Amino acid sequence: MLLDFAKGHGTRNDFVVFADPDNLLDLSAGQVAFLCDRRGGVGADGILRAVRANQVPEWSGEPDVWFMDYRNADGSIAEMCGNGVRVFLRYLEEEGLVTGERVSVATRAGLRTGRFLPDGRIAVTMGPATRGSDVRLTVGGDSWPATSVDVGNPHAVAELESDAQLAALDLTVAPAWEPATAFPNGVNAEFVVREAPGHIRLRVHERGVGETESCGTGVVAAAAAAGQSDHCTVEVIGGTLEVDLTGPEAVLIGPAVVVARGTCLLPT
Amino acid sequence: MLLDFAKGHGTRNDFVVFADPDNLLDLSAGQVAFLCDRRGGVGADGILRAVRANQVPEWSGEPDVWFMDYRNADGSIAEMCGNGVRVFLRYLEEEGLVTGERVSVATRAGLRTGRFLPDGRIAVTMGPATRGSDVRLTVGGDSWPATSVDVGNPHAVAELESDAQLAALDLTVAPAWEPATAFPNGVNAEFVVREAPGHIRLRVHERGVGETESCGTGVVAAAAAAGQSDHCTVEVIGGTLEVDLTGPEAVLIGPAVVVARGTCLLPT
Repeated sequence: MLLDFAKGHGTRNDFVVFADPDNLLDLSAGQVAFLCDRRGGVGADGILRAVRANQVPEWSGEPDVWFMDYRNADGSIAEMCGNGVRVFLRYLEEEGLVTGERVSVATRAGLRTGRFLPDGRIAVTMGPATRGSDVRLTVGGDSWPATSVDVGNPHAVAELESDAQLAALDLTVAPAWEPATAFPNGVNAEFVVREAPGHIRLRVHERGVGETESCGTGVVAAAAAAGQSDHCTVEVIGGTLEVDLTGPEAVLIGPAVVVARGTCLLPT
Repeated sequence: MLLDFAKGHGTRNDFVVFADPDNLLDLSAGQVAFLCDRRGGVGADGILRAVRANQVPEWSGEPDVWFMDYRNADGSIAEMCGNGVRVFLRYLEEEGLVTGERVSVATRAGLRTGRFLPDGRIAVTMGPATRGSDVRLTVGGDSWPATSVDVGNPHAVAELESDAQLAALDLTVAPAWEPATAFPNGVNAEFVVREAPGHIRLRVHERGVGETESCGTGVVAAAAAAGQSDHCTVEVIGGTLEVDLTGPEAVLIGPAVVVARGTCLLPT
């Protein structure tokens, strides 16, 4: 089967994205893995399949939007991805599948609303970011107080003193947390340095993945934990994002670009 | 500028390949890096540009063939790549740019001859493989006698005792060699285990790169050092190759597949 796809990224979190309006392409885990295989396939962190929401049995909300079927590289189902949803919106826009400045998208985490900004960036609602209890994060021999933040998934955010300290962190192993009962399903760990008021630098260890160049929910969690401003600029390894915390839902603002379009033969 | 490209791999050594018959696309290092960028671009180990040989000033040989302009991911020029040349031939064949069972290709290492085998694999001449002096390779606390082999580039091949010993090797750091004067420009290090007569298993550390899933010249060097048979099957992490040592030139035989075709906007 020949598949028409696009490849794009948001702050270097990259995706194979394609349209399947009538929900006909029930890709196997092996087919997703092929699409995400960086050497033997196309290569990406995950895939984004655009399906008309009224064709998705599991979606009972607004029918006249696109549903984002997001799958991890191993084929497993994922709920939402702050960087992925921007790439998804960029793709829909460039393919002429949506029009207007504001576009809602159905995701497994609920309805999200995107806005194409005049400067080329895309802003997307991310749901509420809720601060929880105080915890501690440990990396190697060092330990810091941290704030737990729920952004639909669990985060712990620790503040470090300097860029040098941040750069020296060894995130090749997963950080440990205390109390052990705080995160029964694991946690995404964020380490931030305040660069200026409303401006932080961030490194992220995603649970089950390792250090990544960018993590949309981690950026929101870090901005919420910093709590110093209603708008926060967040530098990640993959680029620069902005978080707007003025409303009931956090809004993540950042770049998204489609870099290639192509066709591949899907394995059966 | 819009570029039409294909992406393919040979034993998981992957390439962006495209045709530029009239030698009009003098890609900058930045453009090559974009094409090879696995997150921000298309993603590959290197690029292969197909130019008519009579349009290449540095080529003074046979004019009526395709010249393989092979560039590393950092934009630097490379001479030859045993896996890349098969992908190059597969691309030329599928694009209808060559016909027949035997096809010669101009490379910076000289003329190479490919042959499309009935079983779907491609055989390519790799020049002579010349055994040199005895050396020693050291990884961590272990050290082995090794054979130096020249395949246009320098190799040292050590034989290990078991698959378990091979699997336990830590190739995240470059192996050391003795005598230090043996390889003034560094060396590619191969570690092999004999599985059966004419059948070896291999791990490779490429100089300046690190461990890779496959290395065409390394496979030839390992087969030549093993010296146990005129035909040698070589298992690498990325798949299975075969080396024919019966003629004056080593012949490397293996798979090559184009997995996607597409278009991307090259940065200026």
